[in-house]
Amino acid sequence: MKSILDYETVALVDEDDAIEIIDQTLLPGTIETIRLHTGKEIWDAIYLLQVRGAPAIGVTAGFGLYLLMKHSEAASYEEFMEELKEKSDYLNSSRPTAVNLSWALKRMESHVVEFTGTGKSFDLSKTIEEMRAESERIKAEDIDVCRRIGENGLTLIKDGYGLLTHCNAGQLATCKYGTATAPMYLAHEKGMNIKVYCDETRPLLQGARLTAFELHSAGIDTTLLCDNMSASLMKTGAINAIFVGCDRVAANGDAANKIGTSVVATVAKRYGIPFYVCAPTSTIDINTKTGDDINIEQRKPEEVTEMWYKERMAPEGVKVYNPAFDVTDNELITGIVTEYGVLKSPYDVAIRKLFEEHKNR
Amino acid sequence: MKSILDYETVALVDEDDAIEIIDQTLLPGTIETIRLHTGKEIWDAIYLLQVRGAPAIGVTAGFGLYLLMKHSEAASYEEFMEELKEKSDYLNSSRPTAVNLSWALKRMESHVVEFTGTGKSFDLSKTIEEMRAESERIKAEDIDVCRRIGENGLTLIKDGYGLLTHCNAGQLATCKYGTATAPMYLAHEKGMNIKVYCDETRPLLQGARLTAFELHSAGIDTTLLCDNMSASLMKTGAINAIFVGCDRVAANGDAANKIGTSVVATVAKRYGIPFYVCAPTSTIDINTKTGDDINIEQRKPEEVTEMWYKERMAPEGVKVYNPAFDVTDNELITGIVTEYGVLKSPYDVAIRKLFEEHKNR
Repeated sequence: MKSILDYETVALVDEDDAIEIIDQTLLPGTIETIRLHTGKEIWDAIYLLQVRGAPAIGVTAGFGLYLLMKHSEAASYEEFMEELKEKSDYLNSSRPTAVNLSWALKRMESHVVEFTGTGKSFDLSKTIEEMRAESERIKAEDIDVCRRIGENGLTLIKDGYGLLTHCNAGQLATCKYGTATAPMYLAHEKGMNIKVYCDETRPLLQGARLTAFELHSAGIDTTLLCDNMSASLMKTGAINAIFVGCDRVAANGDAANKIGTSVVATVAKRYGIPFYVCAPTSTIDINTKTGDDINIEQRKPEEVTEMWYKERMAPEGVKVYNPAFDVTDNELITGIVTEYGVLKSPYDVAIRKLFEEHKNR
Repeated sequence: MKSILDYETVALVDEDDAIEIIDQTLLPGTIETIRLHTGKEIWDAIYLLQVRGAPAIGVTAGFGLYLLMKHSEAASYEEFMEELKEKSDYLNSSRPTAVNLSWALKRMESHVVEFTGTGKSFDLSKTIEEMRAESERIKAEDIDVCRRIGENGLTLIKDGYGLLTHCNAGQLATCKYGTATAPMYLAHEKGMNIKVYCDETRPLLQGARLTAFELHSAGIDTTLLCDNMSASLMKTGAINAIFVGCDRVAANGDAANKIGTSVVATVAKRYGIPFYVCAPTSTIDINTKTGDDINIEQRKPEEVTEMWYKERMAPEGVKVYNPAFDVTDNELITGIVTEYGVLKSPYDVAIRKLFEEHKNR
């Protein structure tokens, strides 16, 4: 039987002018791939979390912008850029918090500017072909970056460790390995004995539906718990380290990630358990000073009040607080695991140094 | 229309040899009362959480023990006591953590011993009639105790406060007012402007299904959130105080309550928000030294993995960690609100003093 890990999270199907994704809203019950052709289909897939996870969203946005420009009939560089900007803005509006979305779109735009010598050597078909190549590079780099995050994270794990993660920063959130899960997959590949505990992650249950699913498929010893059981579990001594992904890291190391992450970090601090944020440098935004400057997406009340027996599970008329993310203050973070190594506090210094050394963005 | 607050949580229907309860597993969609006649029906109702909440379980156990002895044909005091002990042990096995269950059963037993002069003046029908009266007294005292907890808790609330609660320590967990909700109901009755935030409380969603339901029915400004959103919410400054119930308080003030309570307490401490445990003295167990001595019920994995579209929401084969309660360390508790006043740290001293002054147990 094909395992969930044999499917590609996001793939360009150029001959069909489409992006193929696993519809993650149907997991774990049904593994089904769908193809996105139009801008609206791509926008909806991101908004509805059929494709999710900051890196996977970035790759989808790159492919998406290429496909939306593929049949452009722009007569000039200016016309092309205007069209490009419009499509890019549209895709960028699908989810506000994940920096990879705007990062990938900006990267595609900048690449066009650079490739064409700011229009001096503009050639429509060559530019479009180069956009395809650049979008495939974003994907290839994602796989490479995740593997390197895994290698760096692996240095923090010992045989016999119990690990906790929140939400899904797994293969399903990226193109391979995941970010928070990459050290787990590599530890498992090396034959290390680890146990992974997955927070179910309300309201959309990505931990139960996706993380527990993919880790268990890989043969890793996997235990599911509700988000509110973390203190009880940590108190037992079962957890030696925590790895989470992130959607945006500010210049001071504050990290926005799935709602509840900062609760895990707060509880971990009480029990003296190291808390690591796994972050490709593409999720670090040096233009965002602190966590307070991160725009947190508020989502629909129905995500909380419904989806329970397909009936309302809360009474009518009750208000709902439903932010998609929270910000974990840098003082709660033991280390930020990037593809270039593990950053340590003070994060503002470490992040500045990282960006000085690696001008690849 | 009849509001949920117009129903009795637990009532003795003597003429039908039954206990009538609201089947709380059907809320908030359906308000339906059911009658429990046999020991098995009573045991199941407690185990399945059709009736839940430490005080309501205590009242149910009192009525239950009376009904199970009502048609006793015991020929002697010894025979009666043997039968009583057997029924009591059976009911007591339905849930291990709530001290009120064993407290109410022991109280009924002790009362029989006292009333009959340890058998010296044993009269079968008078003894049974006295058991009925004692079980009704447990209920009447529950209502009185909750009201007094409400009055004491009210001294900790100011107009305009935002309050957070976890699980349901509401009217539905008691016979009236609730414990954690009692100060809220009284504040609302006095026309104070309060906003109450309810943690949904996975896995069984008592906060969403019950607390949000009953507070909203009472006309209180009610907002629902997932358990993992507490840090995000507290960071906004919306919460001025937290009130939770409890299932058992140890002699040192450690408090066992619904799973996730200690997470809320840990996060509250980080944000400097006072955290109050509302506890009738019947939930304080001076024979339990610390939280480590409290037996925590582990419940079925299916509570976590199923009940999502009536399909499994987690993959087959994944293990599940599903404790029903956790213990909040006394150092995280700002005050314990009892019917006799608000206890403050050091709790061992305060609890000892409380028991010396009020020998009503």
